Amino acid sequence: MEGVDYLAGERRKAEFDVDEMKIVWAGSRHAFQLSDRISKLVASDPAFSKDGRTTMPRKELFKNTLRKATYAWKRIIELRLTEEEATKLRVYIDEPAFTDLHWAMFIPVIKGSGSEEQQQKWLPLAYKMQIIGCYAQTELGHGSNVQGLETTATFDPQTDEFIIHSPTLTSSKWWPGGLGKIATHAVAFARLITEGKDHGVHGFIVQLRSLEDHKPLPGITVGDIGMKFGNGAYNTMDNGVLRFDHVRIPRDQMLMRVSQVTREGKYVQSDIPRQILYGTMVFVRQTIVSDASSALSRAVCIATRYSAVRRQFGSQDGGQETQVIDYKTQQSRLFPLLASAYAFRFVGEWLKWLYTDVTQKLQAGDFSTLPEVHACTAGLKSLTTSATAVARFLVKTVSQLGSGKQPVGTIAYMGRIEHLMQCRSNVQQAKDWLKPSAVLEAFEARAARMSISCARNVSKFANPEDGFAELSADLAEAAVAHCQLIVVSKFIEKLQQDIPGKGVRQQLEALCSVYALFLLHKHQGDFLATGYITPKQASLANDQLRALYTQVRPNAVALVDAFNYTDHFLGSILGRYDGNVYPKLYEEAWKDPLNATVVPDGYHEYIRPLLKQQLRSARL
Amino acid sequence: MEGVDYLAGERRKAEFDVDEMKIVWAGSRHAFQLSDRISKLVASDPAFSKDGRTTMPRKELFKNTLRKATYAWKRIIELRLTEEEATKLRVYIDEPAFTDLHWAMFIPVIKGSGSEEQQQKWLPLAYKMQIIGCYAQTELGHGSNVQGLETTATFDPQTDEFIIHSPTLTSSKWWPGGLGKIATHAVAFARLITEGKDHGVHGFIVQLRSLEDHKPLPGITVGDIGMKFGNGAYNTMDNGVLRFDHVRIPRDQMLMRVSQVTREGKYVQSDIPRQILYGTMVFVRQTIVSDASSALSRAVCIATRYSAVRRQFGSQDGGQETQVIDYKTQQSRLFPLLASAYAFRFVGEWLKWLYTDVTQKLQAGDFSTLPEVHACTAGLKSLTTSATAVARFLVKTVSQLGSGKQPVGTIAYMGRIEHLMQCRSNVQQAKDWLKPSAVLEAFEARAARMSISCARNVSKFANPEDGFAELSADLAEAAVAHCQLIVVSKFIEKLQQDIPGKGVRQQLEALCSVYALFLLHKHQGDFLATGYITPKQASLANDQLRALYTQVRPNAVALVDAFNYTDHFLGSILGRYDGNVYPKLYEEAWKDPLNATVVPDGYHEYIRPLLKQQLRSARL
Repeated sequence: MEGVDYLAGERRKAEFDVDEMKIVWAGSRHAFQLSDRISKLVASDPAFSKDGRTTMPRKELFKNTLRKATYAWKRIIELRLTEEEATKLRVYIDEPAFTDLHWAMFIPVIKGSGSEEQQQKWLPLAYKMQIIGCYAQTELGHGSNVQGLETTATFDPQTDEFIIHSPTLTSSKWWPGGLGKIATHAVAFARLITEGKDHGVHGFIVQLRSLEDHKPLPGITVGDIGMKFGNGAYNTMDNGVLRFDHVRIPRDQMLMRVSQVTREGKYVQSDIPRQILYGTMVFVRQTIVSDASSALSRAVCIATRYSAVRRQFGSQDGGQETQVIDYKTQQSRLFPLLASAYAFRFVGEWLKWLYTDVTQKLQAGDFSTLPEVHACTAGLKSLTTSATAVARFLVKTVSQLGSGKQPVGTIAYMGRIEHLMQCRSNVQQAKDWLKPSAVLEAFEARAARMSISCARNVSKFANPEDGFAELSADLAEAAVAHCQLIVVSKFIEKLQQDIPGKGVRQQLEALCSVYALFLLHKHQGDFLATGYITPKQASLANDQLRALYTQVRPNAVALVDAFNYTDHFLGSILGRYDGNVYPKLYEEAWKDPLNATVVPDGYHEYIRPLLKQQLRSARL
Repeated sequence: MEGVDYLAGERRKAEFDVDEMKIVWAGSRHAFQLSDRISKLVASDPAFSKDGRTTMPRKELFKNTLRKATYAWKRIIELRLTEEEATKLRVYIDEPAFTDLHWAMFIPVIKGSGSEEQQQKWLPLAYKMQIIGCYAQTELGHGSNVQGLETTATFDPQTDEFIIHSPTLTSSKWWPGGLGKIATHAVAFARLITEGKDHGVHGFIVQLRSLEDHKPLPGITVGDIGMKFGNGAYNTMDNGVLRFDHVRIPRDQMLMRVSQVTREGKYVQSDIPRQILYGTMVFVRQTIVSDASSALSRAVCIATRYSAVRRQFGSQDGGQETQVIDYKTQQSRLFPLLASAYAFRFVGEWLKWLYTDVTQKLQAGDFSTLPEVHACTAGLKSLTTSATAVARFLVKTVSQLGSGKQPVGTIAYMGRIEHLMQCRSNVQQAKDWLKPSAVLEAFEARAARMSISCARNVSKFANPEDGFAELSADLAEAAVAHCQLIVVSKFIEKLQQDIPGKGVRQQLEALCSVYALFLLHKHQGDFLATGYITPKQASLANDQLRALYTQVRPNAVALVDAFNYTDHFLGSILGRYDGNVYPKLYEEAWKDPLNATVVPDGYHEYIRPLLKQQLRSARL
């Protein structure tokens, strides 16, 4: 960030206190300081440089990642970093590696599903990285449907062992990160078979490689699944394939917190409820929402800065061309994404709280909120993919509305169903759409009406399952409506908090309105079809949206500065903090391996014979 | 395509004659036979194998492309292929290379903009590939806005030469394919300056590299701009950077068909109208639409086949799980894209005709249809990016409606504006939406009303340019509505032709309805807001869409088979013709360079010291 700041003019335009916004974005002053310190630690250490990542051949790329991950661990020890700091360090190194799975999956699953003794035995080894673990669940033929996994773990009472086996090609473990070339151990998921009975899928700790020479143990076939899309990108990770050929492990390597197999081979369920395991799932989904918000905010940061640097058309009298960010078409694409980055950040923050809350409740034996938490985390994890699960929950809620059971949490609005089915928007002028209450009621009415409509249509089928199958695309749309309502309402809740700093609240209010009105415009069919708004009110919302874009415009660059990302973390010339894009692009181009020689490899063999019309004798 | 066909069951379900559909897709029996023969020629020649393309380092990848492109040229000569056959050969080799730009840009621009003498001098050299050309227009700081280019071509009457120069960093040529490492010549675009006056941007033939040793000529700085996103992908192309330092070329290397510079340095416009140059632009856009249709159809082919192979959830009594393609959510994503592939194919075919038609008219001095052709090709080229140009044309058309000037071509519906502003859909049951007239009127009414609304809003501004700027996002939406109408109407026109083959017409009718009703559902806000349909009618359209998905389902695999793509061209294990996905994925994984050794490079340096807690002494 040395030298001239080509975006200084943009930064001077900002109408709010960027430093205070940084704290809002980070979640707290502590979180800001932590991220700021660790991200700068990474950015300033040449060992973490990203140079050459897009051009390195796979083997070289992978070896370099091993170096970085190991060096990071060394620094964590040397600097005596806390767990929180170490986690942030891995985030800012910004290179997928085997360590991610070790810390974020292998250790948590042992903590969540292992018995006390198992935790005491395995966790100290894992914490010191004397073993490196991965999470081997997905199979070549089975992804989302965990209950369909084919790998077997058959108990042999003769030897007090489980025999782990891959009976088919499609039962090969496929995708687990860290598995391909590095992990020494896995928590592998397999169907537990004892006394001739299949008890469904359970987790087992299996050693994969020798701790002496790293060679796969007998019966283990393991390797990398090959290149994934993108340059660098996820190719730094050794996503793996794994086959078991009757691999024997001691009985006590089945994860036994919730269910056990006795010495005699009896399958026993403990009195700890299985639901406790859902906690991990909620944790993982919350992480995914938070990662999505991080990825979106990086993309938006790059796009916003480059839109301010890039000029095209509109030159008058030979002057400079117009900044791309000044075009309304560009604003209408960029600013809703900017608003979404903030919206997802806040909903992610709320999910983190929800995880803590549900964990405490589960431990206290209170499972009442679990279905709602399950549905809304699944829905937010992907506003579409898994959203049908949410839709089932919505239809179920609708069906119970008459029963006197009051809906709670994110579904509480369904308790006001009679009002929501009848009410009409009372917006009369564009600025009425700035009222949180107006927006909130619109999203509630839309979600409620779509849910009711789906429930009615499902009920027309003799078999509800047929209804769910036939109407699943409509159900997914209702689920999207519900999840968008959650995001909008959490953004509005955030605005009810105490927000210090000059102009910060005003900016967040504008972004919240952009997010909501953009969705209202994009999905105006839903709002119109359910009769909640008139075409005139839809048009007013669009007018207000345009006015908001004008209001966001001078603050756009400062709003992405508030993410406080280093140039190292962004890893983009177009997104450079100082806007000095063109000289750096030009400089960077010459580093491509193709430019190592003026005349390219292959000229003498192919191009010269072509030009000289001497192809007949060329070896091709 | 040897061995078991895992998709045979799917193929048996088809209710139409696939061979006849192949001919419809190809456009004619001749076109089918040509594509079939050439694609098989490529697929069966090991020299064109795509193996290793995703894992090769850039230099190796590029060298391999040089080999393929040169070998292809050798085969073209040996087999005495026609120009049409040679073009198809390059398409089916499916690897971006310098030859693409030579044939598709360099030669056409000389044909379109060169004088008779220039064509006689340069084309024979280019046709034999004694020179290799590229098209150097885009600059680092200037893309879409051609008039903003900064490179200069200053006439020096002393020596009868132009001096080509890059005055700034942003004037560096940036992106031209083939330029980076291979092209010997370029048509470079530069501002023509003579007698102290800037006459705007013109094309100049400039030699870049020695024909003897391939070294850049004096004053030329040239190289590759570096990796682009993706594995293999466009990295086989040497997109280039080029700077000129006072490079002198003879006067007769300015492309002089439309304007000339005399020996004395006078700038002269010939009586050939400049509009003739638009022909090339229409040609390029038509190519882009056709390439987009090809890319979409390949993706849809892969997705459809894999959706039929992949099973997940829904297993009953331990039987097989449900094929993913049987889920309505999957159908609602996949089938509209399948329908779009066909829709874009047909609109591309029509554009090809339009290009021939407009070329003939231009040559006969008839420029009347040019604005409409310009607007609709730009709009179709990208249903969004360049769509504002279309919107301007729409607003202009609206403003002339009172003048008695009757709109023609794709905009003819505006002539019935009074009807379209008042009419209401008369759909009463779901199946009414299958009538082409019902769909067509809906799309016409929507497009007309959105155009009128935009025109009214623009007219409220004192300065129309301010109106266009402020409302550009809305204008873009109106343009999208207009372009979607074109695609729908061209699909419907296609159905009015004679279409032989059992069931072929019925399948195309179903796809046409899927395409239209999917858009109607997605954009139902537009249709509802303009009051053309009621919420009930929108809901009926959605019911009909679901019914159509059920109808398309048994034909889906056969409908993508009709594209007649070889496995070589698809280049996807998931999309294999025989559906034998899992064993081939498994096999392929082991070919990754990371799997060359069991213990990975870097284990001894990094992983072992980590596991053994010996990091202090490790070199990291």
